[in-house]
Amino acid sequence: MIKQQEISITTRGRGTYDMSDRVQEAVRASGIQTGICHAFIRHTSASLMLCENADPAVRHDLETFMARLVPDGDPMFTHDAEGPDDMPSHVRSVLTQSDLNLPISAGRCALGTWQGIFLWEHRSAGHERKILLTMSGE
Amino acid sequence: MIKQQEISITTRGRGTYDMSDRVQEAVRASGIQTGICHAFIRHTSASLMLCENADPAVRHDLETFMARLVPDGDPMFTHDAEGPDDMPSHVRSVLTQSDLNLPISAGRCALGTWQGIFLWEHRSAGHERKILLTMSGE
Amino acid sequence: MIKQQEISITTRGRGTYDMSDRVQEAVRASGIQTGICHAFIRHTSASLMLCENADPAVRHDLETFMARLVPDGDPMFTHDAEGPDDMPSHVRSVLTQSDLNLPISAGRCALGTWQGIFLWEHRSAGHERKILLTMSGE
Repeated sequence: MIKQQEISITTRGRGTYDMSDRVQEAVRASGIQTGICHAFIRHTSASLMLCENADPAVRHDLETFMARLVPDGDPMFTHDAEGPDDMPSHVRSVLTQSDLNLPISAGRCALGTWQGIFLWEHRSAGHERKILLTMSGE
Repeated sequence: MIKQQEISITTRGRGTYDMSDRVQEAVRASGIQTGICHAFIRHTSASLMLCENADPAVRHDLETFMARLVPDGDPMFTHDAEGPDDMPSHVRSVLTQSDLNLPISAGRCALGTWQGIFLWEHRSAGHERKILLTMSGE
Repeated sequence: MIKQQEISITTRGRGTYDMSDRVQEAVRASGIQTGICHAFIRHTSASLMLCENADPAVRHDLETFMARLVPDGDPMFTHDAEGPDDMPSHVRSVLTQSDLNLPISAGRCALGTWQGIFLWEHRSAGHERKILLTMSGE
């Protein structure tokens, strides 16, 4: 059995957005008990991420780390038509994930206790992000 | 339904190679309308990448970024039997992707408007790279 | 056909642990000839990695690289309740992979000659790590 569903998440600019409940709800609605839920973001300047879900400081520190590793406006970047965060958002996407595969067991994504599913917006401005979910299994 | 096909891409050394058409053609030939196309590179010194497909400056800047992050010939590396680009190519592979999962909708990979599928050769010399595609669905 | 199996790997602290044989054995036991083996680690401070499997210096150099890129005890990190390796282990996880998809051909994971499957423990102390394998195919 295969079910496909697109979900849309509107961001308010750079940062992380918990989408665990959205994904779990789609899995529940699919009726699949055992299988895989594939989440795919149809953009190259935002990521999908599994991350510690309890202490917001973890995601704050991830932003700090990325801002140091891939600084906005770094003069080495030539692709800056959309501003100083344009090329850094592509680099951040390449260093992280555009898609996630999540195992489905007993009708739910079998995440670990501390795992949450996050959309990571890399652009400074807010965007509407499309994520295509493909759930397959029995 | 599951279809498997190996494709081969001959690189001319470090850089990115657009393989979107090759993957879309394999998906079309599979006859699968809804499902997943999994692409897997059978090497540890080249990657598969989803990346902005319109402005080649994006991929140029990615090379510049990686050359700064993981410099060839960095004296911290001890594994250099095949030259100064040997260990950096393994690090680049680990920091990016060896496999991609692409959703299939209406018989095609449902990429975003600006998403292309690229092979990223990390070695200085050209290589023949084997990519195994596994397409499953209905 | 879908088969799911959890495996457990006990680590002795930071470093890489070859789990190729464990995964190949699970694939063999599943009886699946053609398909995908998905491996998912249910933690946010350890990774799954495809890496060169012949020269241990490669994995040694990867540790050296990561220790420089994401130093333990870096004062920029605020999340340090579990010690100086706490936040770095989350960053390392985000920069690498929490899940791998491996193609199954002729009843085995169709890895390249030099590809091994490793668990990468990022914490200083040993942990028991749970990996959920989902194998699907024919």
